[in-house]
Amino acid sequence: MTPRPPTVVIENVSPLIDAGRYPVKRGVGEDLLVEADIYKDGHDVVSAVLKWRRKGAARWHETPMAAIPNGNDRWRATCSFFENTTYQLTIEAWGDTFRSWQHEFHTKFSAGLQDLTSESLEGAALVEKAAQLAAQQGQGRDQKRLLEIAETIRTGTPADVNEISHRHELEALMSAYSDRIDACEFVLDPPSVFHLIESPLEPLPLEESPALRKGARSKKKPPVIAPTAPSAAAVPSDLNLEYVTVTVDRNRALFSQWYEFFPRSAEGRGDRGSTFRDCLPRIDDARAMGFDVIYFPPIHPVGVTARKGRNNSVTCEPGEPGVPYAIGNRHQNCPNGGGHKDVAPELGTLEDLDWLTGELKARGMELALDFAINCSPDHPYVHEHPEWFYKRPDGTIKYAENPPKKYQDVYPMNFHNPNWRALWEELTSIILFWCEHNVRIFRVDNPHTKPVAFWEYLIGKVQARFPDAIFLSEAFTRPKMMKSLAKAGYTHSYTYFTWRNSKHELIEYFTELTQTAMKDYFRANLWPNTPDILPFFLQHGGRPAFMIRAVLAATLSSIYGIYSGFELCENAALPNKEEYLDSEKYQWKERDWNAPGNIKHLITALNRIRRENRALQEYSNLRFYHSDNDHVLFFGKMSEARDNIILVVVNLDPYQAQGSFIEVPITEFGWMEGDSYQVHDLLFDERYLWSGPRNFVQLDPHTKPAHIFKVRRWVSREQDFDYFM
Amino acid sequence: MTPRPPTVVIENVSPLIDAGRYPVKRGVGEDLLVEADIYKDGHDVVSAVLKWRRKGAARWHETPMAAIPNGNDRWRATCSFFENTTYQLTIEAWGDTFRSWQHEFHTKFSAGLQDLTSESLEGAALVEKAAQLAAQQGQGRDQKRLLEIAETIRTGTPADVNEISHRHELEALMSAYSDRIDACEFVLDPPSVFHLIESPLEPLPLEESPALRKGARSKKKPPVIAPTAPSAAAVPSDLNLEYVTVTVDRNRALFSQWYEFFPRSAEGRGDRGSTFRDCLPRIDDARAMGFDVIYFPPIHPVGVTARKGRNNSVTCEPGEPGVPYAIGNRHQNCPNGGGHKDVAPELGTLEDLDWLTGELKARGMELALDFAINCSPDHPYVHEHPEWFYKRPDGTIKYAENPPKKYQDVYPMNFHNPNWRALWEELTSIILFWCEHNVRIFRVDNPHTKPVAFWEYLIGKVQARFPDAIFLSEAFTRPKMMKSLAKAGYTHSYTYFTWRNSKHELIEYFTELTQTAMKDYFRANLWPNTPDILPFFLQHGGRPAFMIRAVLAATLSSIYGIYSGFELCENAALPNKEEYLDSEKYQWKERDWNAPGNIKHLITALNRIRRENRALQEYSNLRFYHSDNDHVLFFGKMSEARDNIILVVVNLDPYQAQGSFIEVPITEFGWMEGDSYQVHDLLFDERYLWSGPRNFVQLDPHTKPAHIFKVRRWVSREQDFDYFM
Repeated sequence: MTPRPPTVVIENVSPLIDAGRYPVKRGVGEDLLVEADIYKDGHDVVSAVLKWRRKGAARWHETPMAAIPNGNDRWRATCSFFENTTYQLTIEAWGDTFRSWQHEFHTKFSAGLQDLTSESLEGAALVEKAAQLAAQQGQGRDQKRLLEIAETIRTGTPADVNEISHRHELEALMSAYSDRIDACEFVLDPPSVFHLIESPLEPLPLEESPALRKGARSKKKPPVIAPTAPSAAAVPSDLNLEYVTVTVDRNRALFSQWYEFFPRSAEGRGDRGSTFRDCLPRIDDARAMGFDVIYFPPIHPVGVTARKGRNNSVTCEPGEPGVPYAIGNRHQNCPNGGGHKDVAPELGTLEDLDWLTGELKARGMELALDFAINCSPDHPYVHEHPEWFYKRPDGTIKYAENPPKKYQDVYPMNFHNPNWRALWEELTSIILFWCEHNVRIFRVDNPHTKPVAFWEYLIGKVQARFPDAIFLSEAFTRPKMMKSLAKAGYTHSYTYFTWRNSKHELIEYFTELTQTAMKDYFRANLWPNTPDILPFFLQHGGRPAFMIRAVLAATLSSIYGIYSGFELCENAALPNKEEYLDSEKYQWKERDWNAPGNIKHLITALNRIRRENRALQEYSNLRFYHSDNDHVLFFGKMSEARDNIILVVVNLDPYQAQGSFIEVPITEFGWMEGDSYQVHDLLFDERYLWSGPRNFVQLDPHTKPAHIFKVRRWVSREQDFDYFM
Repeated sequence: MTPRPPTVVIENVSPLIDAGRYPVKRGVGEDLLVEADIYKDGHDVVSAVLKWRRKGAARWHETPMAAIPNGNDRWRATCSFFENTTYQLTIEAWGDTFRSWQHEFHTKFSAGLQDLTSESLEGAALVEKAAQLAAQQGQGRDQKRLLEIAETIRTGTPADVNEISHRHELEALMSAYSDRIDACEFVLDPPSVFHLIESPLEPLPLEESPALRKGARSKKKPPVIAPTAPSAAAVPSDLNLEYVTVTVDRNRALFSQWYEFFPRSAEGRGDRGSTFRDCLPRIDDARAMGFDVIYFPPIHPVGVTARKGRNNSVTCEPGEPGVPYAIGNRHQNCPNGGGHKDVAPELGTLEDLDWLTGELKARGMELALDFAINCSPDHPYVHEHPEWFYKRPDGTIKYAENPPKKYQDVYPMNFHNPNWRALWEELTSIILFWCEHNVRIFRVDNPHTKPVAFWEYLIGKVQARFPDAIFLSEAFTRPKMMKSLAKAGYTHSYTYFTWRNSKHELIEYFTELTQTAMKDYFRANLWPNTPDILPFFLQHGGRPAFMIRAVLAATLSSIYGIYSGFELCENAALPNKEEYLDSEKYQWKERDWNAPGNIKHLITALNRIRRENRALQEYSNLRFYHSDNDHVLFFGKMSEARDNIILVVVNLDPYQAQGSFIEVPITEFGWMEGDSYQVHDLLFDERYLWSGPRNFVQLDPHTKPAHIFKVRRWVSREQDFDYFM
């Protein structure tokens, strides 16, 4: 058998990110529904399977694909992934000789054609070939049975043959030993048909013909498909390049709640900074609230040259701690030179940090570090690699500017400097360094001011060694750049959620995030505040605004976080800016972590509800429903099996109570329109018995800004609600 | 300078067929509007150009792209192609150092910053670099002027520099000698960033680094873009593989009217067949009707074994001519063996055919041949290459079947037989043979029963030698297969038009054809009838139905054709079938080519109107408009400049008159709502003065089934309609 050009067309595969250039993202245990257009020339019956494997594995898993009824040649199948690694995926399809014969025989028999001898002999030969394949696979019993059936077909009447050909036993056996002659496989860069015909390869069996599979560069853009081995044969792993890839992330990439605090603020003292060793009480408090990721802004040595003072003042009083984002101080005594691979001595030592990550692990929690590619004038890179920075005409190094704003304490880096390779490798080595210190979550500062290609490189390199590494993109920038960073590898992304307050905005934005192609590569990590952003809504809406935003963040996405102080409803801002007054970015900050009016009880409840309800741990199951009032947002999340149904109603108005009729999507639950059901408010532990879709809610932002309902069908013979607890 | 990874993101380029796997189609002189998402990291101002060239050419043409205002990083530009060949297309974009500097300087100056010495020096250096580029290009005068300006910038006050930097003269010069450092180019298979950083190339200038441009196979799917030369430098033509390709077809691919007849029927005699030499009167009649392509069903020797008789009878009387689709008769005395490279002796000789193509050419017309991959049992291939056919268990060759139908006179071919290469090459050589006989249009019979990859191969090979070759796909099959064939290379396609009769169907189908991505690769050639299809609408609707379908075919697409007899309203069918009674596929047919009741005058008028109105010669400018009556279809076509506006109103009901209000899209014409305008019915030479969008039409299918209006704005000071003629 010599290599042959494809005959089945497999195209329009979904999901596919930018034609397969970027991997699809999934989490461990998550399903992936794959669809494709599959058809071939002529009248053969087509069969297709979805195949997937760990990258590097020799053999594929496979599952049959089914044509969607009246689906215009659209096929589908679902697979799942159970390991935190990179998978490959393809579709194999072929003209099914047995099923084509079965169909043709049946048509002729039904039309009353008398002499079907030749047709019977053809069928017998197909069954014998399957027997041969069974024998090759050591399945003697199947071989024997197939040979028996072949004999019956050879000698039977047309009526017999027609009946035998439709027996489930035969269909199952023929499917198990399918003769996938002319099978084609979906690959991203198949060999060109011009290449195939004009540079004939030696007549090797297909599975020994890597050049065919891999495809030398084509003279013309090739068809979408490539011939494949006659059965799902082993393929050398270095040829794995052209398949659709799926990045399968660990659980915390899908479901986590983050708490950000400056370790130097752990004790809440205004007169001095805290250390890593002082952080446990803050961590335990966060844990009590239900958080599992603790995120620290940069913990590295802080520069002294041009150090900023309180409220970003260009002058700094002696003893002020400076901005943690002005990274690097080679003048301090640090084991690794005082740059990104050291911790600030005022916070402790690397050993102290290792101790802290151990304490977190013991609590089922995890540390996230900040990766800010900023160098203070005192960073060792400035002295070792001045070529990595931008220079003025007079030869001095440029500090960062966003005219007319100046950041004299920070030097940006030139990613395209002549010595860029060394820079990219060094920056990558920083992340690898912290991975070795058992940190696996990185929040990346301003990734959109560095080349997307750099992030693709860095994340690819790191995840090749540490597949459990999670990267959060802190890009608040143009929409396409935010998407690009996610495609290039970011596990999580900051979003515009921070500024989406109205019902219309929230519905539009979250529909895009969770119901479009974005859901396959972009995971929204929702933050109502950050050290850089105190939104006007929180400034003006007071405590009710904080409660509203907490509920939205905790229920709209399976991933969210707060920057400490949020739970205390801190909302003192610089005038007319969305920035904190007396921001702890520039100073030590005195705080009562249990200040009156705090909403820690609400946050604790939200995280408990998230932990107890699987529907809230999924990302793209968000659906919006109708409420009559424009201040009342109504949405839901359901598990695939509909055994966990959560409905959320939020009053978006922080100033006054709002009532609204809402329309419960009863039929989406798989229930009858007339069924009664219990809605159990998990925030306030109140239960209502509802029936019919339209029901009324009334929400006072000061006392009860939202309902989070767990919904269960009411079975009338039961007398007691408590039965359902 | 060493190769560097990309920094500008260029993605979501449109049009792009299957991510660039297949070429975009355009015609000579047609515009191509190209759009893309273009953005980069950081704050630089981006510049971009659209580039195109003949495949194989060293240098690119280029035109600036512009960001669409508020377009969310969407850019666009338009180019045109003036040669019937294959073009390549790309986008080049870069961070524009001059414009970034201009912007930053202006921002700082406007913010009142005082010391801008360093900034001025930077600007001066940029201008000096441009002077250097001018010198390299031998533009001494520009060099001198740039150096003068640089000096002014170096020594000027901030106000001076700000003013100078915005002078049009400087902007034009800086754009002409733009320093495209870090420029990126859109290619379909760019080098991977992993490859770039890990296998560093020797530090060659970029334009000498083919490996970078071409991209060795990547370890991971790469970013969308690749670095490019610092200016639009020459690129060796053998590296042209990764660009978007555009197939530019000649004029007749965009606009033509086809007339199909069986040459053996030219004289309309029932007692004997006509010859090529008898065809001139029929051709002249077609020409008088306005047709320019004459399409012949197969003209090759017809098999004798199992030859079919009248009305597809399995028995054939002696002397009956047989079916031209049962191709091949090695028993006849033919110079090339009696197969696809010969003409049937009863039609004449190859020399006669050459004479006929010459006569057609002299008339400004052209011949289209039928390419049917069918072999009669007497075809030379059957004897020379039995391995090219399907066999029964008893070793005999299988004839074609579509159970329970049998085609004993035709053997289908096995495109995946072990000797497939020889088969594919032989079939390709058939088309090349006829191209050498000055035939350049091929209507291909049932292409969907052969592999799509085969057509991609054949059409690619043929058009590489004969770029003017036009292929029409006769596929009436599943929608995706029809699209696939067009993507693989077919110039024209048959369509479902033949069965689309209702207003809803027509609007839906033609909107898909002309307003979706299909318009860039699929050109609908409309046929109201074929020798295989006499639709029920024509059978039952009589002469009015023929008139309705003629108007629709001639105005909905710029390409259409009729099968002879249509102009005579022939509608005798086999009972309950959409097939002709006494079809001339099986017999000689007696005809009066000027039979009473014919609609030759209408067809003549339609073709004249098409010839005189450019709007009807374009394909994707079709737009549907509102009419109140469901039997009245209202649509229009306009030239881009709006200087030729055609509106068509058709009564789709062949049985009775229908009246309707229609809504004329006045504002789409660029006119005011209140303007008056003349509508001139080009079919019946009647003029009406209308104003306002709503106007009434009344159409009687027996006398006036349609209006074809030419629309002109009425300028009130003119007294005489004739002025506008």
